[in-house]
Amino acid sequence: MAKKVGVAILGLGVVGGGTYQTLVDHHDFYLKTQKVDLTVEAVLDKAEARLDALGVPEDLRAKSIDEVLANPNVDIVVETIGGVGVAKVFVTAALRNGKTVVTSNKELICKHSHELEDIAKRNGCGLYYEASCVGGVPIIRTLLDGVQANKINKMMGIVNGTTNYILTKMAGEGADYAETLKEAQRLGYAEFDPTNDVEGFDSTYKLSILSSMAFHTKVPYTKIFREGISGIATEDIAYGKELGYTLKLLAIGKNTEKGIEVRVHPTFIPTAHPLASVNDAYNAVYLCGDAVDDIMLYGRGAGALPTASAVVSDVIYAATHTEIKYSTFKNTANAERNVKFVSNFASAYYIRLSVQDKAGVLAKLTGVFARNGISIVEIEQKGKKEVGENGEVRVPLIIVTHQTHENSVKNAVAKLGETDMAKVEAVIRVEQ
Amino acid sequence: MAKKVGVAILGLGVVGGGTYQTLVDHHDFYLKTQKVDLTVEAVLDKAEARLDALGVPEDLRAKSIDEVLANPNVDIVVETIGGVGVAKVFVTAALRNGKTVVTSNKELICKHSHELEDIAKRNGCGLYYEASCVGGVPIIRTLLDGVQANKINKMMGIVNGTTNYILTKMAGEGADYAETLKEAQRLGYAEFDPTNDVEGFDSTYKLSILSSMAFHTKVPYTKIFREGISGIATEDIAYGKELGYTLKLLAIGKNTEKGIEVRVHPTFIPTAHPLASVNDAYNAVYLCGDAVDDIMLYGRGAGALPTASAVVSDVIYAATHTEIKYSTFKNTANAERNVKFVSNFASAYYIRLSVQDKAGVLAKLTGVFARNGISIVEIEQKGKKEVGENGEVRVPLIIVTHQTHENSVKNAVAKLGETDMAKVEAVIRVEQ
Repeated sequence: MAKKVGVAILGLGVVGGGTYQTLVDHHDFYLKTQKVDLTVEAVLDKAEARLDALGVPEDLRAKSIDEVLANPNVDIVVETIGGVGVAKVFVTAALRNGKTVVTSNKELICKHSHELEDIAKRNGCGLYYEASCVGGVPIIRTLLDGVQANKINKMMGIVNGTTNYILTKMAGEGADYAETLKEAQRLGYAEFDPTNDVEGFDSTYKLSILSSMAFHTKVPYTKIFREGISGIATEDIAYGKELGYTLKLLAIGKNTEKGIEVRVHPTFIPTAHPLASVNDAYNAVYLCGDAVDDIMLYGRGAGALPTASAVVSDVIYAATHTEIKYSTFKNTANAERNVKFVSNFASAYYIRLSVQDKAGVLAKLTGVFARNGISIVEIEQKGKKEVGENGEVRVPLIIVTHQTHENSVKNAVAKLGETDMAKVEAVIRVEQ
Repeated sequence: MAKKVGVAILGLGVVGGGTYQTLVDHHDFYLKTQKVDLTVEAVLDKAEARLDALGVPEDLRAKSIDEVLANPNVDIVVETIGGVGVAKVFVTAALRNGKTVVTSNKELICKHSHELEDIAKRNGCGLYYEASCVGGVPIIRTLLDGVQANKINKMMGIVNGTTNYILTKMAGEGADYAETLKEAQRLGYAEFDPTNDVEGFDSTYKLSILSSMAFHTKVPYTKIFREGISGIATEDIAYGKELGYTLKLLAIGKNTEKGIEVRVHPTFIPTAHPLASVNDAYNAVYLCGDAVDDIMLYGRGAGALPTASAVVSDVIYAATHTEIKYSTFKNTANAERNVKFVSNFASAYYIRLSVQDKAGVLAKLTGVFARNGISIVEIEQKGKKEVGENGEVRVPLIIVTHQTHENSVKNAVAKLGETDMAKVEAVIRVEQ
C-alpha cells in the first residue's frame, strides 16, 4: 500500500548526520502518518568514523557518487556537503540522472539556483531547499504555499544565529564585542574564523534566497547592501535601549514602487517589535503581505536536528507529491530584465557623535543635518565627558533622525568629518 | 498557457468579502506568479447590499446553490458562511458535485471533518481549511507540509483575538474584566454576546482541529478541558507579573506517553516565553517537535484580508496541485480506536488564598497541600489586609506549586473549602 521511496545522503556532517538519524528513527512513523516507506538506500562520506558513530550499516556505504546515482532504489538525493565545489558537481550529476534533490546548501542555491533549476526542469525532477534558510523554520514552504496569495512588500529577518547570540549577550551583559565573540567561539556558537557570520555574508545568502521567493524575481546576493556587527560598541546598544530600541542584525527586503531594496546591517527596532524579543541563537522572519498584514515565523536557525527537520520535511513533500514541484523554484527562475534595485534607500538613523563641549557647536552641527535635508526626531547630550589628547573636552551626542535617505546621511557624515567640532562614532539604521 | 480555474464564493460577509476582493484585485498577479487564471465565476449571498458594496457584477450573482453547482466553470467552492446549518448543507452538496471546497468554518471542520472528508474522497475532490484557525497564519500548511518530519509533542496557542485583547488591556491598564470587555465590545473586538470567545469555546474548536493534525488522530472538542477568562481578577495578573509571569488564554495540546492532553484555560507563562509578548488581537501558535525543537508562528488571527489570505492561499494550492490533496485531512481521518485522553493532567499552579491573619494558619494550610502530595515552590503573603463582615482580618497569600496533578489541586482546594482558615480566590495553571 505504502509508496516506497529511497533516499541517499551525500555528506554525513552535522546536518547530514541529523538527517540520517531522523529518517532511520522515524521510518515507521512516516509509514503510518504519511503512507510512505522512506528508506535510506545509500550514504556517501569519506569519513568512516562518522559513519561508524551513526551506526550506518556497511551495505549502505557507497564508494562514489556514481555508485549512488546508479542505484535504481535511490529516488531522492539529499546534499548536505555545503559549499559550491563538490556539492555543485554532485547535485548537477544527481539532477542529470533524474534524481530529485533536497539540499541544505544556502551558498549553492544563492549562487547557482538558476542553473540548477534549469537542469532539474529538463530532467523532470525537483529541487528543494527549505533547509538552506533559517534551519527548521518552514519559511520557504510558507512563502510558496502559505502566503502565496499576497504581494509581499517587506521582510525583515534575524537569519544568523551567531550574530544574534553575540548581540543578545552584549545587550544582556554589557560585555564588548571582542570578548563576547571569544565566549561564543568557546561555546561553539561562532566559528574559529567568524567572518562569514559576523560580517553578514551568511545573512546575504539567505536574504537572496528568501527575497527572490517573496518578490518573485531573482535577487542576486551581490545586490545586497551589507554591514556586519564587528564595529558595534556596547554603549550604543545601551543608549538605544534608553530610547526604546533593541539592536539586531537584520536582513531586510522591501518591494517598493521605486524597486527592490535589500540590505543586511545592524538595526535598531522598537523593543515592542516581535523581532526584538528573538534572543540568543533563535532566528525569525517577519513578513508583511498586502492581505495577511504582518506575520512572523520563529525557531532554531541551526543545529543538527532542527535543520534535519527541514531536510526531511522536504523529502516527505517530494515523496508524497507525485506532481513535480517546480513551484519550489518557479519564483526565482523568472528573473526579470528590468528589476530596479534601490541603493539610496530610505531609513531613519541613530547617530552617535563625539562633540566639542562648547557654545555654538550644536547650532553648526544641526545646520549640517538641515542642509542635507535630514530632520531630527530626538537629540540627546550624554553627561559622560571625554578629554582628548589635546586637552579638548568632548561629550557624546545622540541624534535620531526622521525617515531620510542613505546618501543624505553619508553626505552629512562626510561633511562633519571635514570639521573639528564632531566625530561620528556610530551610524545605525532604525526600522519600525 | 495558464490553467483556468473558476471559483464560487458562498457568503460575502467579512471573510467572504475579503476573499472576493483579494481574488479580483490579484487576478493578474496570480496569472504571472502562479501561472493560473483564477476567476470568480459566481457568488451566493442574499444580501444585495453587500454585493453592491463590493461591486459584484450582476452576471456573477447566483440565485441558488443549485445554480452555483451546476455551473461547469466553477472548480472550487469557497464557503465563508459559518456555522453548521446551511454551510454544512452547501459544503456537502458541493463535494457531492465534485467541487473542491475551501472553507474558513472552524465549527464545521471541528464537528464534521470526518463526514466531509469521506464525501470529498469518494468524489475525488479536496477539502481545505487553513482559514479555520488563526486567520492568515499558515499553521495548517506548516503542520502538513512544513514540520511533518516531526513527532509533535506539544503545542500552545493564543488562538482567540478577543480574549488576548482583553487580557492585554487588563495587564497594561489595570482595568477589571467587566469594563475591559465593555471597551472591547465598543471597539468591535468582542461580540455583543461574547460567550463563545471569552468562555473559550472558540479556542476549543481551533485546538480540536490543530491538535488532530499535530497528533495524527481526531481530537474531539468535547474531550478538551475548558475554562474561560471571565473569572480573571486584575490583581492576579499583577501578582503574576511580580512573579515573572504573563497571563494568556492558551490552547494547550500535549502528546505524552500517557495519552493526549488537551485544554483551554487562562495560563501563566514566563514573561520571557515567546508567547508572552503576543499582544492585543494578535495570535500565535508555539509548537515543539522532536527534531525541530520549538517554533512559533505569529500573526493576525482574524480580519477580512488576513483571513482571506488563508482562503486564497488554499485556493491557489488547490488550483496549482493537480494531485488531489487528501493530505490536507488524512491526519484527522485516522482516528484511532484506543486513543487515551489524560484528564488528570500535570501542571504547576498559582493559587491565591485569602487567609486568616493569625498564628498557626500557615502551618495548617501548607499541611493540606503536603497531604495532597503538592509541593510548593514559592509562598508569598501580601500586605493588603481585608477585614471581613465578622471583623476577622484576612490577608492575600500567593502559592506557586511545583509540577503536580489537576486532581491533587482539586482535592486540596476542596479540603480548604471545608475550613474557615482560607478561602481560595484564584487557581491559575502555570506552563513553562
